[in-house]
Amino acid sequence: MRVEDLDTPVLIVDLDGLENNLDRYHRYFAEHKIGLRPHIKTHKTLAIAHQQMRRGAVGITCQKLGEAEVMVAGGVDQDVLIPFNIIGAAKLDRLMALSRRTRLTVAADSAYTVEGLSAAAQRSGDTVGVIVELGVGGRAGVPTPQAALELAQLIARSPGLELRGLMAFPTDARTRPVLQETLALLDQSGLPHPIVSGGSTASALLAHEVPELTEHRAGEYCVGGVGHLRRGTHTVAQCALRVLMTVVSRPTPDRAILDGGSKSLSASTIQDGDHTSMGYIVEYPQARFSGASEEHGHVDVSACDPKPQIGERVQVLPVHPCPCVNEHDELVAVRQGRVEAVWPVSARGKIR
Amino acid sequence: MRVEDLDTPVLIVDLDGLENNLDRYHRYFAEHKIGLRPHIKTHKTLAIAHQQMRRGAVGITCQKLGEAEVMVAGGVDQDVLIPFNIIGAAKLDRLMALSRRTRLTVAADSAYTVEGLSAAAQRSGDTVGVIVELGVGGRAGVPTPQAALELAQLIARSPGLELRGLMAFPTDARTRPVLQETLALLDQSGLPHPIVSGGSTASALLAHEVPELTEHRAGEYCVGGVGHLRRGTHTVAQCALRVLMTVVSRPTPDRAILDGGSKSLSASTIQDGDHTSMGYIVEYPQARFSGASEEHGHVDVSACDPKPQIGERVQVLPVHPCPCVNEHDELVAVRQGRVEAVWPVSARGKIR
Repeated sequence: MRVEDLDTPVLIVDLDGLENNLDRYHRYFAEHKIGLRPHIKTHKTLAIAHQQMRRGAVGITCQKLGEAEVMVAGGVDQDVLIPFNIIGAAKLDRLMALSRRTRLTVAADSAYTVEGLSAAAQRSGDTVGVIVELGVGGRAGVPTPQAALELAQLIARSPGLELRGLMAFPTDARTRPVLQETLALLDQSGLPHPIVSGGSTASALLAHEVPELTEHRAGEYCVGGVGHLRRGTHTVAQCALRVLMTVVSRPTPDRAILDGGSKSLSASTIQDGDHTSMGYIVEYPQARFSGASEEHGHVDVSACDPKPQIGERVQVLPVHPCPCVNEHDELVAVRQGRVEAVWPVSARGKIR
Repeated sequence: MRVEDLDTPVLIVDLDGLENNLDRYHRYFAEHKIGLRPHIKTHKTLAIAHQQMRRGAVGITCQKLGEAEVMVAGGVDQDVLIPFNIIGAAKLDRLMALSRRTRLTVAADSAYTVEGLSAAAQRSGDTVGVIVELGVGGRAGVPTPQAALELAQLIARSPGLELRGLMAFPTDARTRPVLQETLALLDQSGLPHPIVSGGSTASALLAHEVPELTEHRAGEYCVGGVGHLRRGTHTVAQCALRVLMTVVSRPTPDRAILDGGSKSLSASTIQDGDHTSMGYIVEYPQARFSGASEEHGHVDVSACDPKPQIGERVQVLPVHPCPCVNEHDELVAVRQGRVEAVWPVSARGKIR
């Protein structure tokens, strides 16, 4: 079966592009002796996670417990980090059950989270590894190095918990001073930090500029997207995730309507120069994917010559690969136009 | 089981709110003798579609063939409109198969689409109903009344097709003149238009101001959303679709992090006064749901007094219900805090 035989819209991954990304990023981290811990939330797919492990990943990152359960059940069970505050009895019970099947580490940024983890660990008679989340990126995380120290001390003295270090997002030259200051405080108190976990694909190839890192979490590196294309970390060929769409309407000479909208790409947008974009059309780089309804892609083709015609098929790079993949039940793996596999997106929709 | 027993994040629908919306919108359309043809893309759920039919809907609207197949297989098989250009052999074969199981009408805005439909109908020996899509909303649709007339003439003379009228989106006082002009041209040519289909929830309760309409397509009316709340068509209680979330982090006094982000709500945003919003928190109307990562909801709680605490649960109204529902496999039906049913979101992800 060839890509031309697939009905549209359909999510495809170009295997040459995927493997090129895996090769270059895993090689970079091996050279710099920093562990790469891929974030599976980008692809949500067992087949790709197994490829990442085979290429030397130190383990995987799962943003949610439900994603981790899918990965471990599918054999990606060596070492899992969940960089998220796990809260509530239902999830804590599942967490402890999962901890018997893989080496598991979770993040915490509050005494509330730590106390819940400790109580659950004691109930189950098992130990769970915990790292402190440093709040450097305006998301979750303790606000200061001193607060990180205090939380690390609480983890270290909490029954059933093993302090394993800390994490931050994002990690780069700007956030390094806070990381250094926190590590110095931990060292002064004799607290261990075998894991110092950095994150983001944008800064991934600069991870060596933060030599404190023992490992790095990155998700999108494996498939890229419009942001990576603009940033220059990925060429069009390296933007391996595409939604294949068909032109279904040419209502005016300057506009084309595709058969995929936000339900195929997600509602993510990116500011692209002076306009908002929802995707990049590989065959028509001059086209502007200016907006979308759920099932209609709205494309300004005024700058295209020739212009796409009704019935023609195009490949669209999503702005943000992770939510794009979450819209789809299947990911079709393609090499040089030939379908090699249809992978279930097994961790799709695992929000709990 | 009560709503407190559900783990978060979880998509719920408040049945009192849902039924209130169904009652008032279906009553309005009955009073004005305009057919209501609910767009099932909002809820994607058989149980709600059946409720809409029981309340007198003239049929359903499905944006994609795959949605229609799910609905018909689930017994919502009286009368289906697909307001979309169906293109390509794979879909045309499915369309003709489906046309044997329900009264089916599709839209077209080009000779390309009409010729494909006619060829498929002739191959199968069946007839399919076609309406002309008028391009009044900057999406698909023929650009002028004259172009609509010419396409209607082509449909009328194409073997296997039955001309059934026309559709537009949106329909309101501004688009009425184009509609009137097109209908006059059809009348002059003796072409039938038993269906004159209007659309959008925003203008639904003003459908009587466009008396040419025989029916109206609306989806979001049944559950509302932040846009409807702002527009005043729905109260908070009538915004029946909510994502229940837990506060998992309070990194600073002014910020809270919820355990649901774009993977629970979709990446849709709305401009809410001077800021961009991704949701409305029922228990904290002063909170600003200012952004989200995939699994983190970012909330500015500076204006809240008291402020939400870690472990607390809140109900979040999505900005746009349709893509929000598409993130979820299940919809939990709740009445006065008690779980009455867990409905599979059967038409989720049906993009083809």
